[in-house]
Amino acid sequence: MSRSVLIDRIGQLLFADPEREELADAALVIEGERVAWIGPAADAPAADRRVDAGGRAVLPGFVDSHTHLVFAGDRAAEFAARMAGEPYRAGGIRTTVAATRAASDAQLAERTGRLAAELLAQGTTTFEIKSGYGLTVEDERRCLRVARAFTPETTFLGAHVVPEGVDADAYVALVAGPMLEACAPYAKWADVFCEPGLPGAFDGDQARAVLAAGVRAGLGARVHAGQFAEGPGVRLACELGAASADHCTHLSDADVAALADSGVVATLLPGAEFATRSPYPDARRLLDAGVTVALATDCNPGSSYTSSMPFCIALAVREMRMTPLEAVRAATRGGAAALRRDDVGTLRPGARADLVVLEAPSYVHLAYRPGVPLVAQVWRAGSRVA
Amino acid sequence: MSRSVLIDRIGQLLFADPEREELADAALVIEGERVAWIGPAADAPAADRRVDAGGRAVLPGFVDSHTHLVFAGDRAAEFAARMAGEPYRAGGIRTTVAATRAASDAQLAERTGRLAAELLAQGTTTFEIKSGYGLTVEDERRCLRVARAFTPETTFLGAHVVPEGVDADAYVALVAGPMLEACAPYAKWADVFCEPGLPGAFDGDQARAVLAAGVRAGLGARVHAGQFAEGPGVRLACELGAASADHCTHLSDADVAALADSGVVATLLPGAEFATRSPYPDARRLLDAGVTVALATDCNPGSSYTSSMPFCIALAVREMRMTPLEAVRAATRGGAAALRRDDVGTLRPGARADLVVLEAPSYVHLAYRPGVPLVAQVWRAGSRVA
Ligand SMILES: [Zn+2]
Ligand SMILES: [Zn+2]
Repeated sequence: MSRSVLIDRIGQLLFADPEREELADAALVIEGERVAWIGPAADAPAADRRVDAGGRAVLPGFVDSHTHLVFAGDRAAEFAARMAGEPYRAGGIRTTVAATRAASDAQLAERTGRLAAELLAQGTTTFEIKSGYGLTVEDERRCLRVARAFTPETTFLGAHVVPEGVDADAYVALVAGPMLEACAPYAKWADVFCEPGLPGAFDGDQARAVLAAGVRAGLGARVHAGQFAEGPGVRLACELGAASADHCTHLSDADVAALADSGVVATLLPGAEFATRSPYPDARRLLDAGVTVALATDCNPGSSYTSSMPFCIALAVREMRMTPLEAVRAATRGGAAALRRDDVGTLRPGARADLVVLEAPSYVHLAYRPGVPLVAQVWRAGSRVA
Repeated sequence: MSRSVLIDRIGQLLFADPEREELADAALVIEGERVAWIGPAADAPAADRRVDAGGRAVLPGFVDSHTHLVFAGDRAAEFAARMAGEPYRAGGIRTTVAATRAASDAQLAERTGRLAAELLAQGTTTFEIKSGYGLTVEDERRCLRVARAFTPETTFLGAHVVPEGVDADAYVALVAGPMLEACAPYAKWADVFCEPGLPGAFDGDQARAVLAAGVRAGLGARVHAGQFAEGPGVRLACELGAASADHCTHLSDADVAALADSGVVATLLPGAEFATRSPYPDARRLLDAGVTVALATDCNPGSSYTSSMPFCIALAVREMRMTPLEAVRAATRGGAAALRRDDVGTLRPGARADLVVLEAPSYVHLAYRPGVPLVAQVWRAGSRVA
């Protein structure tokens, strides 16, 4: 029998009321796995259990729509060398590919589980995981099988980088053919690293071949686009009806217009700019054009090894001139839009009861107090998990 | 009777051996409050208790030599307005002064204790606290009394800002006279916010009057200098034999040379540049000139409300081009130098057993994994505290 929980004395409740994004002095009732009621604390109904939020802020659990959590090894030395002046190279991905291929399924699951727990402890209650460090039919499939144990939001990214010594077009044919066929049962999405100027990454035609095959196999499309230079990835995402174009650091005016017209979400990954010492995307240009913006961690061992959505929110405010509310919206509702989910990223009645209680009176503190662990409680599907 | 603890299987041990800053496969023995032995894991002696570090990195607890932890209220709205384009104004300090004066001693102690616990949980085992939000004889004294309950490293900063409606020179006479006299019993250090161009802050002559009086009263000197523009503060610090010049964002060549010649520590506070969206100090220029550099949080509700030394380390690497080792050294040994302490910031035998076990194989991860809570264990004076 499902029990009800009343979370009372919420100083600030975010994204729960369709009319007002911020509510003061609110309460929320959970029935089973869902939000059943929200309203003024003074009107709160009785429930089987009462939790006193003590005036703290409550917001939807973060939705991290872009991670690469299934891998082995780390690249701390490459990071340190890059900070000392070495440029970023996509070929570094191959270091992780070698370590991942050498790891057992159990080792991959153990590492992925540890990272998933790290995300959860920092308030992320929904996250996507991509493959892309296997790059063989069997290794991509087993990475997705590992990922599927942690989330339904799994993404086939066989087209992450062309493996060492393999012809690019032959590899694209493999990815769009037998690899996709083997992986599709474990994947909800197909993705490609479209960056024509970067050795090892994929050009527009290659990206189109991979994504179109993914869509034919019943997967939704998402694209790594415009991380290092303007390119065809964003318009391809719009043309194919992708859910999201990710990175969007380098965009033409036509790209911005296409995103706004198509409703494709622009997923910004400031952790990658932080860790590669690159210029940040122009979030204001996107927001002012009416594009839906998501924030995600891009958690991966090469170009962004943060698992912290609060850190990404702080960067979005400092570096991308998003307001704190825009940043938190992008980290919750935006991420949900990028995964085409309407049950998460919101606390409206009917939504999944995924929420974060902050050790702070306001969501603003996520940007105002960077680096400080402010996530006091995490609830997922109506149960407290951290 | 003091018991011994063996911390075994340390993957990487930092700042424990006078000959080598990094040791691999090491062990460390604590006797009572002190480090008694360090060496290869294979040679580890027996102890009353054994802790398995499991290959993780162990480093000295962080030394945060610059905080303003005693205050009431917050300035989240001012922060959000600044992120939307408003410039930083020292006058904002007065908002916190009003809230602090209105708070009881018990309220101040409760808030300071909460922040001190937050620092400790993030690996900071030694921290300084300044007054500066009282600005009357009695309010400065009670703020220092509160601070003294948490740390011996207390700093009298009556000269934080000229209170509203008070003549600056009259206020300097008060600070250097009766206020200093009332506060000196609770303070180890005297400090002044020397920033001639900033309304409310103090010019070189005013700063000299305050610091010279502090030194005559037996306090050590430290100076807020060069945060917003080049000024006389750094050379004043060098001339008076201060322990540290803090901020050092804007320095002349003569300032850098004076720091190198005098041995005054340059304490960099990148959290303040992050939160005021200001250019970062040029750490490389200081390091290359042979200046001792410390990193500290500047934790305060106006210009840097982070309490996270790991966050400051990540910023130092990304934004100030320090190597990860330089940044961690500045956050431990550098902070100790800025407080003229030789018992902390190091794990050499004889040092206080203040240490951090990271959830990572290397200190590099503090920069490589920004925002992620990597502090797995904290020990202070030989006891596990987090
Ligand atoms: Zn990615
Ligand atoms: Zn300060």
